[in-house]
Amino acid sequence: MNIGIVGLGLMGGSLALDLKSYNLASKIVGYDRNQKHCQEALELGLVDEVITFDELKNCDIIFLAIPVEGIIEALQKLQDIHISTTIIDLGSTKEKIVATCPKSIRPNFVAAHPMAGTEYSGPLAALKGLYYDKIVVLCNTEDNALFHKERAEEIFVSIGMQIVYMDAREHDLHAAYISHLPHAISYALANSVLKQEDPKSILILAAGGFRDMSRLAKSSPTMWSDIFKQNKKNLLTSLDVFKEELQTVKKLIEEEKWEELKEWMQTATTLHKIL
Amino acid sequence: MNIGIVGLGLMGGSLALDLKSYNLASKIVGYDRNQKHCQEALELGLVDEVITFDELKNCDIIFLAIPVEGIIEALQKLQDIHISTTIIDLGSTKEKIVATCPKSIRPNFVAAHPMAGTEYSGPLAALKGLYYDKIVVLCNTEDNALFHKERAEEIFVSIGMQIVYMDAREHDLHAAYISHLPHAISYALANSVLKQEDPKSILILAAGGFRDMSRLAKSSPTMWSDIFKQNKKNLLTSLDVFKEELQTVKKLIEEEKWEELKEWMQTATTLHKIL
Repeated sequence: MNIGIVGLGLMGGSLALDLKSYNLASKIVGYDRNQKHCQEALELGLVDEVITFDELKNCDIIFLAIPVEGIIEALQKLQDIHISTTIIDLGSTKEKIVATCPKSIRPNFVAAHPMAGTEYSGPLAALKGLYYDKIVVLCNTEDNALFHKERAEEIFVSIGMQIVYMDAREHDLHAAYISHLPHAISYALANSVLKQEDPKSILILAAGGFRDMSRLAKSSPTMWSDIFKQNKKNLLTSLDVFKEELQTVKKLIEEEKWEELKEWMQTATTLHKIL
Repeated sequence: MNIGIVGLGLMGGSLALDLKSYNLASKIVGYDRNQKHCQEALELGLVDEVITFDELKNCDIIFLAIPVEGIIEALQKLQDIHISTTIIDLGSTKEKIVATCPKSIRPNFVAAHPMAGTEYSGPLAALKGLYYDKIVVLCNTEDNALFHKERAEEIFVSIGMQIVYMDAREHDLHAAYISHLPHAISYALANSVLKQEDPKSILILAAGGFRDMSRLAKSSPTMWSDIFKQNKKNLLTSLDVFKEELQTVKKLIEEEKWEELKEWMQTATTLHKIL
């Protein structure tokens, strides 16, 4: 089975490593608009060959491991794909992507969101085992041909993932709280410190807590501005909810309601009983 | 040298383990208001003996590893300490603590803030090596007798810490951004998710990013409401700065200024060049 990967960065590169190590493809070919990434992917042995976008159409399975706006464009260009070719995306948003997928290839296109990643990007960030023991969300699979759905499931299970099925709309709302809002917060925290008079004197005190909270702020702006664009409505809703919580804690501190503050914190600690 | 530790939780317990493993004390005695903690500390071998608060006064060094409001109270009760006894606190705020320390023992009292910890608390959370290779901030050491200052420095260096000297006021402002604000944010994020209709369906998607961002929300409400109380002014300032950044990202998304959003994110990524 020939597998093609569009986008040879963290997600695509890591997938290539897993496909190889589990012997899931006879050949892995790759495409990336960035020439440097193509070169690196070859040097790192992520893919066997770098091909043109049009040559992808000879693959049995095509993975779209690119920013979410690019996924929408790529699907338009893949309208004439063979009936037996499976297309799987790895994007962090799903609603717009399934809504804009050309009808002719909707049975072929499996909308997936692997809940895995790091704050790094590019082929050098590729990590063997990135997907192992992680969740992958498959959305609106009722619109897929069974053949393509099962093919996608088989690959995800083979690389050690657990599948969760979800409606694309529900996925995007949940993803806003669990991933997109935390990214917005992390970028905002980083910018809050950078705006201070002497960030270096502040950062010398950074321990594990701050490092964890600002880690997501290393993430690729190209990738994340696309995600914020596609999940605009849900992200804005979640930002409002979060701002209200901030307003609560601010008011409790201003009004020196220490017992109520403690209760508010106590409620927050219960999160980890269900996480 | 007899060392007494007030508060046998994460910070005090971990310190006890290090003092033992580096052979820095002939005897380590402990005091905790919580009887269960006393029992656990003995069972875990964190301290050689549990004593009364008054008996602490026979120690050569007394560490105050308790919530910051408790530190202020404890210093009042230690006013009649022997001239050769060193008192060292491990609190996360410094300004109020040094300001309220009784004048008679100000030369003895070394105000310290080790930038180390985990989200867990209690004797069972004690961790050998917690302080190794971490920063400890010593504040206003010009008010200390040289003997006590050097004694404190020697112990912190012996357990592998790097010392940073800082004015207490400056410390509290910096600590607001690097530690207290991130805790407020983490609690607020946890409560945002918990307020949703079905938190479990959201949390099933949690990967490393959300876990990191919500980790601090496990921290002890008793300890952290005290810290918020003592660093009220700076924390409110930092909350305002952070809210402004949130407002910026919200507006950029609402007005669909994607290029500006990308630049705002790009700025945030530069934090890690100086972190």
